[in-house]
Amino acid sequence: MVELTLPGPADVLAAAARIAAHATVTPVLRSRAMDALSGAHLHFKAEHLQRGGAFKFRGACNAVWALDEAQARHGVVTHSSGNHGAALALAAQSRGIPCHVVVPEGAVAAKLASIARHGATLWRCAPTQAAREAECARVQRDTGAVLVHPYADARVIAGQGTATLELLRQAGTALDVVVVPAGGGGLASGTLLALQQAAPGCELVLAEPAGAADTARSLAAGRRLVDFVPDTVCDGLRGALGEPNFALLHGKATAITVDDAATVAAMRLLWQVLKQVVEPSSATVLAAVLAQPARFAGRNVGLVLSGGNVDLDALPWMRA
Amino acid sequence: MVELTLPGPADVLAAAARIAAHATVTPVLRSRAMDALSGAHLHFKAEHLQRGGAFKFRGACNAVWALDEAQARHGVVTHSSGNHGAALALAAQSRGIPCHVVVPEGAVAAKLASIARHGATLWRCAPTQAAREAECARVQRDTGAVLVHPYADARVIAGQGTATLELLRQAGTALDVVVVPAGGGGLASGTLLALQQAAPGCELVLAEPAGAADTARSLAAGRRLVDFVPDTVCDGLRGALGEPNFALLHGKATAITVDDAATVAAMRLLWQVLKQVVEPSSATVLAAVLAQPARFAGRNVGLVLSGGNVDLDALPWMRA
Repeated sequence: MVELTLPGPADVLAAAARIAAHATVTPVLRSRAMDALSGAHLHFKAEHLQRGGAFKFRGACNAVWALDEAQARHGVVTHSSGNHGAALALAAQSRGIPCHVVVPEGAVAAKLASIARHGATLWRCAPTQAAREAECARVQRDTGAVLVHPYADARVIAGQGTATLELLRQAGTALDVVVVPAGGGGLASGTLLALQQAAPGCELVLAEPAGAADTARSLAAGRRLVDFVPDTVCDGLRGALGEPNFALLHGKATAITVDDAATVAAMRLLWQVLKQVVEPSSATVLAAVLAQPARFAGRNVGLVLSGGNVDLDALPWMRA
Repeated sequence: MVELTLPGPADVLAAAARIAAHATVTPVLRSRAMDALSGAHLHFKAEHLQRGGAFKFRGACNAVWALDEAQARHGVVTHSSGNHGAALALAAQSRGIPCHVVVPEGAVAAKLASIARHGATLWRCAPTQAAREAECARVQRDTGAVLVHPYADARVIAGQGTATLELLRQAGTALDVVVVPAGGGGLASGTLLALQQAAPGCELVLAEPAGAADTARSLAAGRRLVDFVPDTVCDGLRGALGEPNFALLHGKATAITVDDAATVAAMRLLWQVLKQVVEPSSATVLAAVLAQPARFAGRNVGLVLSGGNVDLDALPWMRA
């Protein structure tokens, strides 16, 4: 089921051209207070202001618009109860093709409503990986829809890289390092390609929750180590590092792991000081910079704020 | 105590030049979802991203840098437990002069800490208007500091207008109407001057809480009616319309009053859809547009998000 073709740096340029008419060019936010707090020059790429509230729209949009007419007619399918599901629904809507999303029983009602609002057909299944893949395969068989995996897909990876292409252009100065959250590795590997394309001297650092640190372990071991049970408040980063994602990142990036307390504290800072509603996954990047101040001191640091889809009635600092 | 000199449109241009080296050029945010929701083209001027977290820094900065050397040496004084106090402290810090802020007993500790953090001296007084003015007069007498009133001050009014000068330039299209919150009227009257200077055909609409609707009543009656007890969640809009502010606005603007429930609902939309942490006062502008959809339908509407200083542990939708 996994698309193993590896995308290259030029694919990010092609993706940027392909999605230009549909995706938002999100702003880069700066804050004197945040710079003072971190001792670095922080450039926040506001992907929580992307359509659908997350960078995921970039990859989904690239995948949808990369299909030829014959493929596109049958639509697309994915399994995701989170930002990718809504992003693919939005992307399919932008091309006027069907979208099927397989969602596990027990998924958050608000997220499902968001997917349905963008016109996708929801298919329920048991909350196991096997059930999700089986139901996804059945929908592919019955409808002819093309699978768009949330991160282990060359078109998705290339699309996610476009955020950093923009960031590099918007920053107004050369960036020394870019920090992005690591979950399945779609954003991480796409960002790597963007840097190879447009800023080869710029370092890539991945921020990962300690409770789902398979990317950090895999990069350290030199092989994919993805047998783990995620335990983190970062609902967007619980997935396991994909195969093509690991193949791209291996030897090219380092990871900083952050515990949930540090992530929640960083999230609160982003709300209080930067005045941005971001989800916990987004806050890992600031938590990583604050965890290793000497490493970032005085440097121009790009940070991708990955998404802003949170339940305003259940903020992490409300839980006693 | 009130500065009755009325500023003119050109004073906003002079203010923009004066504060350019100190104030942030805040972004203008757009959202397809917000446009769809309102039926209008909404251009949000993000003044909650201004230094100090509110537009207030513009007016305070203009007042501080308009002083001649002899005046400036003795510093500035104001009475405010809110955004103006912190803004004046920041502005004084930017010029390296003393700042005194008279604060009533019982003011929110977090706001006082913010004022003190920017280097101002705090002076406590009883929580009445008379006590505040008396203590302010005493500080003026004892220190020679210049009073910078939060809104009934020509330099402050001109400074607040600079936000709309920027908005008009940034919007990328001609605006048909600009909506700003109305409290004491500093932002409202400054915005009027900015429109007279740069977009004379653009309408000015004031958004005001129903529980502090003295501006709406005064504009309707043609005379200042400021004898009221404010009752609103919008802590930034409880002040009474100032004399110079009324003199400028009279006959030149209309007001839409919104009740607190509508304001809190609009605030939640700004958090959920626009992903911005704004305070209740900021949300009145969206509440006003949503309250009268026919009036704004299809028009290019500028909305000034005035500030983002909220207590994340006491959000209005948490109160049962």
